[in-house]
Amino acid sequence: MMKPVLVFGMVLAATFAVADDVPPPASKLSRAVAESGNRQPAIPRPDQETLAQEKLAAHLAETGQRPNIVIFVVDDMGYGDPGAFGGGGMIGAATPEMDALAAEGLKLTSTYSQYTCTPTRAAIYTGRLPARTGLIRPILAGDTLKVNPWEGELTSAGLLSDAGYHTMLVGKWHIGEGEGMRPHDVGFDEFFGFYKAQKEYTQAYDGRRFPDLVHDEDKLGRYQSIGSINDLIFGLADGTTETVETITSPEMMAEGDRKLRDYTVKRIAELAGGEQPFFISHSFMKVHADNFPSEEYVGASASKFPYRDNMVEVDAYIGDVVEALESAGVLENTFIFVTSDNGPQMDSWPDSGYTPFRGAKGTTWEGGVRVPGIAYWKGMIAPGRESDGLFDLMDLFDTALALGGVDAEALPADRYWDGIDQTSFLLADDGESKREHVYNWLGAQLAAMRMREYKAHLLVSLAQEKFLYIDMAAVVPTGLAPWLFNLYIDPMEEYPVGHRMNAWTASLGAELKAHAATFAKFPPKDLGL
Amino acid sequence: MMKPVLVFGMVLAATFAVADDVPPPASKLSRAVAESGNRQPAIPRPDQETLAQEKLAAHLAETGQRPNIVIFVVDDMGYGDPGAFGGGGMIGAATPEMDALAAEGLKLTSTYSQYTCTPTRAAIYTGRLPARTGLIRPILAGDTLKVNPWEGELTSAGLLSDAGYHTMLVGKWHIGEGEGMRPHDVGFDEFFGFYKAQKEYTQAYDGRRFPDLVHDEDKLGRYQSIGSINDLIFGLADGTTETVETITSPEMMAEGDRKLRDYTVKRIAELAGGEQPFFISHSFMKVHADNFPSEEYVGASASKFPYRDNMVEVDAYIGDVVEALESAGVLENTFIFVTSDNGPQMDSWPDSGYTPFRGAKGTTWEGGVRVPGIAYWKGMIAPGRESDGLFDLMDLFDTALALGGVDAEALPADRYWDGIDQTSFLLADDGESKREHVYNWLGAQLAAMRMREYKAHLLVSLAQEKFLYIDMAAVVPTGLAPWLFNLYIDPMEEYPVGHRMNAWTASLGAELKAHAATFAKFPPKDLGL
Repeated sequence: MMKPVLVFGMVLAATFAVADDVPPPASKLSRAVAESGNRQPAIPRPDQETLAQEKLAAHLAETGQRPNIVIFVVDDMGYGDPGAFGGGGMIGAATPEMDALAAEGLKLTSTYSQYTCTPTRAAIYTGRLPARTGLIRPILAGDTLKVNPWEGELTSAGLLSDAGYHTMLVGKWHIGEGEGMRPHDVGFDEFFGFYKAQKEYTQAYDGRRFPDLVHDEDKLGRYQSIGSINDLIFGLADGTTETVETITSPEMMAEGDRKLRDYTVKRIAELAGGEQPFFISHSFMKVHADNFPSEEYVGASASKFPYRDNMVEVDAYIGDVVEALESAGVLENTFIFVTSDNGPQMDSWPDSGYTPFRGAKGTTWEGGVRVPGIAYWKGMIAPGRESDGLFDLMDLFDTALALGGVDAEALPADRYWDGIDQTSFLLADDGESKREHVYNWLGAQLAAMRMREYKAHLLVSLAQEKFLYIDMAAVVPTGLAPWLFNLYIDPMEEYPVGHRMNAWTASLGAELKAHAATFAKFPPKDLGL
Repeated sequence: MMKPVLVFGMVLAATFAVADDVPPPASKLSRAVAESGNRQPAIPRPDQETLAQEKLAAHLAETGQRPNIVIFVVDDMGYGDPGAFGGGGMIGAATPEMDALAAEGLKLTSTYSQYTCTPTRAAIYTGRLPARTGLIRPILAGDTLKVNPWEGELTSAGLLSDAGYHTMLVGKWHIGEGEGMRPHDVGFDEFFGFYKAQKEYTQAYDGRRFPDLVHDEDKLGRYQSIGSINDLIFGLADGTTETVETITSPEMMAEGDRKLRDYTVKRIAELAGGEQPFFISHSFMKVHADNFPSEEYVGASASKFPYRDNMVEVDAYIGDVVEALESAGVLENTFIFVTSDNGPQMDSWPDSGYTPFRGAKGTTWEGGVRVPGIAYWKGMIAPGRESDGLFDLMDLFDTALALGGVDAEALPADRYWDGIDQTSFLLADDGESKREHVYNWLGAQLAAMRMREYKAHLLVSLAQEKFLYIDMAAVVPTGLAPWLFNLYIDPMEEYPVGHRMNAWTASLGAELKAHAATFAKFPPKDLGL
């Protein structure tokens, strides 16, 4: 695969008549400013920073402890799947728990993931773009990695652990299963979960969906010879790694999220009584294809489709974990975030998710990268808030560090940091996003940028068929100029306005060049993925 | 235009191998049953009926008065425009007032209008399908009608007026402007508003949008010679009809909804002190193309586009009217409903609305006929409810009569009634819809039916271009069988499942035949539209 900067440069050089040395303009308006040469520019919002810091200080004084942090990552959940984001009961799977968190917290309608699973998870934990860390595409069962992608990287879990947090990943990992690459190797004090996506545990046993694999001895043998780990794993930072059970049927996998829920609920009760605040990434296996509802949830949705039943199940489990926090008396000291790792995967249709946007998982259309975002903190985030301010899931890295009292200024200066501390956006009652840009990378190629209500595409996937998973084959450069869409008047990205607004398009071009320049200054890693 | 039954028969006869005399099966399950030969079959829900009646009786005993009824009809607002339905801030036009009514009331995600303006309004007021009353398409400026469409028709306004209500239409009418056809001729005691859509008042003065009309003397002369009424009208049932002002500029029209708001607010304060309960249809001129925000609201939306500014304006006015009800002390005695008359009109893009569905106004795809629906009654409708149960805007006819104590059994038996009394759906805390079917007519042709989560199309518009307003030219019969979509797993109607589920498709066919039979039994009117 080509290196990022080269591809980017090729496209951009042909498209913008903007001098290389023009930086994005600083301003007294709501424009982003780079505070240092190795940090994503952020919009200065001094007033809300003060408000948020005062709020945090008062909370710390009252409780004597930094907040717990719980991040729910639902796998492949579409932007439109939760009721609060337009789906829910409308698509036959009511989500009262997520809807309640959204209604009683901050609903973020412009939250962005990466285009697929591993890149998003890596970005959340490292605060850096996958194009920089090299984790540019999913690590599939049997993938061999030339180098340990975690070599030299820091994670929010590790930094928080060093700062006194108990850090725990419950659920899906998907960023390497070899020694040195596992959650408990890279900063999580504790791991209880799965290394892969749930279809990779079930498809060898699912003769109804995959007769050509399951009922062909030769093919099945080859598939199984990949030798990937099919276990539910328990691990500790001291190196302890135990198999809790080995998944040998879809029925076992169906109960996976129930077991994860049980584990998180149990551990919260235990941890809440301790001295350490905790950081939990509760990462669901569901609703990734292929979906098998837990026995208790078969037919639980109005729709009756397994994906929809699993939405109901996942939603209930989120409610259970929140209830566990409440029962343990720590709900008011816990920051909660709910999101998905990318848009819905559609090649499992009719058993798949819902996005109102163009495209799906595997593309940089909004359908692939715009995800639900809910920030909830009882008593600290005002109920009923809603914002379309930009939030990149990478911002969870910086925000978690800030909430945990880790000094981001002390992070190494030898690399570029793409996340933004959004604490003040989330906590100030009228807080606004500090982020002006979201960059949408498609593997090693910069494909698009969201800036304010605009989306500029340098590369577009022209495949019309949603069922295509990652339609890289149909990806083409936009040519003379980016395709520019105004997402307020055209949320489905159907009608380009760039040529009508050419001066503004050029202005976005300058922003893209500034982003490209960071790759020249800090060369990215190439893991050979 | 062809007559309904004939067209319908042509399509259906070729498509279903179902005997003519098979009625839809009655059942102990949630199947609709016809209580008489001239009424739309409804799902029996005796338990919730009892609950709702007890609630109403207790309320009547406490207040001594039947409830006021206020129906807000926003013109051409898309399903996705309000925040509660997925848009709002996400598309640059926050709608906090509508969102609050939805959050504190019942959000109805499967509410259906007709495919365009006049048919929907006629259906709301008459409780009968436009194909029966003959009001099958918009009455445009200059349209001459062979017969008075209201001849022999009854309206909810008239029936409620007879039963002691003060009935009032404030805003848009669009169902005839000749004597005998005006709101104050057909049951509304009082009218303050406009006969036409707002673009028909402004386009002759809008040289920026319509240079070919405005700057061509000959064309403009012909346009103006149509002689339609360009006035804001005040009218009373005694025949009083006065011009309040004549609209002679977009700037005047821009203030139209502000004046309507002022009028409704003023009249609520007056009426609240009186003996009579009131029925108000507050029908906005906005957000129909072409949009000009009131001076106060220019740039009021994050998007800054006039349509979006007008969404903000309309939303604020809804809040003002609700506040007027509260100030007058009658909020807890007022049933409120918020909706739109059809999907968004897209030929004014980029200044247009938003639907997450396929198609737009003028089609029977979901984008044309699925509209926001919010039922709010403080203290009587439990807050936080949401339902995807079917609600046809015609049901407002029967529901209004029921709330107003008008005996629907006493309605004439010489015609067919298509609405369903949904009082128990709306008022019982766990109420479910009594409607099993929604029929989507495209003019005089039955084009589709929604039944539970399924949509069966007999005729589809294959135009891909949303900008086409009424793309009748592209409408074709589906041929061998209807196109069936499962809206839970395919809300955008992209992937037909009818052939995969052929027995179920035939079951829907039987329901369609039963509907067709009502037209044979009760021949529809033909107004020559």
